[in-house]
Amino acid sequence: MEAPFVDWLLARLPRDPRLEVPPGDDAAVLRPPAGRRTVITVDLLTEGVDFLLGGDTTPARVGHKALAVNLSDLAAMGARPEAAVVAVALPREGAAALGKGIHAGLAPLAAHFGMTIAGGDTNTWNGPLVISVTAIGSVPPGAAWRRDGARPGDLLVVTGPCGGSLLGRHLDVAPRCHEALAIAARFAVRAAIDISDGLSLDLARMMRASGTRGVVDLARVPIHPDAERRSRFDDDGVSPLEHALGDGEDFELLLALAEADARALVADPPAGIAPVIFGEVAAGAGLIARHADGSTHALQPRGWLHDGA
Amino acid sequence: MEAPFVDWLLARLPRDPRLEVPPGDDAAVLRPPAGRRTVITVDLLTEGVDFLLGGDTTPARVGHKALAVNLSDLAAMGARPEAAVVAVALPREGAAALGKGIHAGLAPLAAHFGMTIAGGDTNTWNGPLVISVTAIGSVPPGAAWRRDGARPGDLLVVTGPCGGSLLGRHLDVAPRCHEALAIAARFAVRAAIDISDGLSLDLARMMRASGTRGVVDLARVPIHPDAERRSRFDDDGVSPLEHALGDGEDFELLLALAEADARALVADPPAGIAPVIFGEVAAGAGLIARHADGSTHALQPRGWLHDGA
Repeated sequence: MEAPFVDWLLARLPRDPRLEVPPGDDAAVLRPPAGRRTVITVDLLTEGVDFLLGGDTTPARVGHKALAVNLSDLAAMGARPEAAVVAVALPREGAAALGKGIHAGLAPLAAHFGMTIAGGDTNTWNGPLVISVTAIGSVPPGAAWRRDGARPGDLLVVTGPCGGSLLGRHLDVAPRCHEALAIAARFAVRAAIDISDGLSLDLARMMRASGTRGVVDLARVPIHPDAERRSRFDDDGVSPLEHALGDGEDFELLLALAEADARALVADPPAGIAPVIFGEVAAGAGLIARHADGSTHALQPRGWLHDGA
Repeated sequence: MEAPFVDWLLARLPRDPRLEVPPGDDAAVLRPPAGRRTVITVDLLTEGVDFLLGGDTTPARVGHKALAVNLSDLAAMGARPEAAVVAVALPREGAAALGKGIHAGLAPLAAHFGMTIAGGDTNTWNGPLVISVTAIGSVPPGAAWRRDGARPGDLLVVTGPCGGSLLGRHLDVAPRCHEALAIAARFAVRAAIDISDGLSLDLARMMRASGTRGVVDLARVPIHPDAERRSRFDDDGVSPLEHALGDGEDFELLLALAEADARALVADPPAGIAPVIFGEVAAGAGLIARHADGSTHALQPRGWLHDGA
């Protein structure tokens, strides 16, 4: 997969003043922004697990998703996107067309978020499509949002409605990068995570890391219309609320903020999102569901639990 | 592939003062070394193309190789290794054992080169093993070795003998990181590339990038004993020299230096390598083979040309 496709690709990567050595050498050389930390994350997507090519699932949407899930990780750190490298294993048959399709989805998203494509590795093989994106961002020292900073008394905020992403949003991920930077500029976010595997599961991870308990007001969990649609059409008895709590791939941000900050954020949010307070942080461990009448019960975290071994 | 294996892995990643936020969050946060550039490279290896698990090809050797080829890219930039992230798609059957084996090969190599494992992404799927490593290094501003700086009159140096790597060295890659830093401290290297696809092919790439011609003294090309062994045992008429010129995966460094520097380097090399002057840079394009009697002919670059589409 050397000369023709790689040359095609290199010719299409926009020059970027951050790159002292552009793609095409053994490695790229990036001028890191002065006085900032480097944020690094990687996500590898595989055909059959993260997407199924065909029909509406075009190579461009897969390319978009592969970069978007990494941008969402940067957003969850309160980081500014800087650069990405993209490694692919393309099925031999039609490899170049597939590679070009992936690029068609990935490049506009990178440009939209001011991210330079610093390089990559293009391979062909007798296997399904695999795409691994490593994203580099930057934050001021000590400013990265972590999972482990939630404190009892903080309120829990989610940046948008959840559930039913499988109906399409899991591909057309809209990473909350701009919104994260706008929030970081105004508030001291105590803890953050992006909702990749499920609102309740990712909340449980934040609570575990913070050594705290999450109390979820069931009536306040924002439910996406896609969650309602799934409940209506699937005949499996799963409620819209359960979809919102457990489907995952929403790629909204889940934040813990001091009460005054949380209320100020939802009262005057960054453009394009309608964040909601859906619970609070308490002393203890695990998750508690609170009903509108004040009664509570333990909430089992649910979501996309990757099957281990 | 969440909790058990990932927890096992996180517990084994050594703490590193360069990490402001260690692995286990949405992303890692790295303190970049002050006043240096960030070097980024990625290589994705697939079962069936880059290795065939089984027999002597243990998961640990594959893990070693996956990181080593990236370290070799950093060496080819004259860069100091800093951090890596590792993404894998593991076949579902025996995923955790395979993941642990990969870690067993990768972690000691990272430690040897002072590199911190900053994170990763562990997936399982119904496919063969895929491993994608992104390596981060650092160089002083303007000091990165590029491919495009060779000038007519420069001498061509290779850091060790080539050919026959398929007999085992293609797995037990010894990246020339320490040697590269030792060379960078003493000499202004004009151009550099690592020999991943074949001495003649990688030289042709350097010459193309530099707008120069490479003249190869055939009698001076250092031939690895493995190249001799392959010629002796394979019944295909490929000479040891041809193996040295075209096999690839030697992961030696190919350097262009001013004549005095090249002679000083081979006269007093860094410990552990025996660099050899095997040709020179001339005006023009392409490669020329020069025989011991002074006669020349065009040299067709040969090597591991990844099949494109």
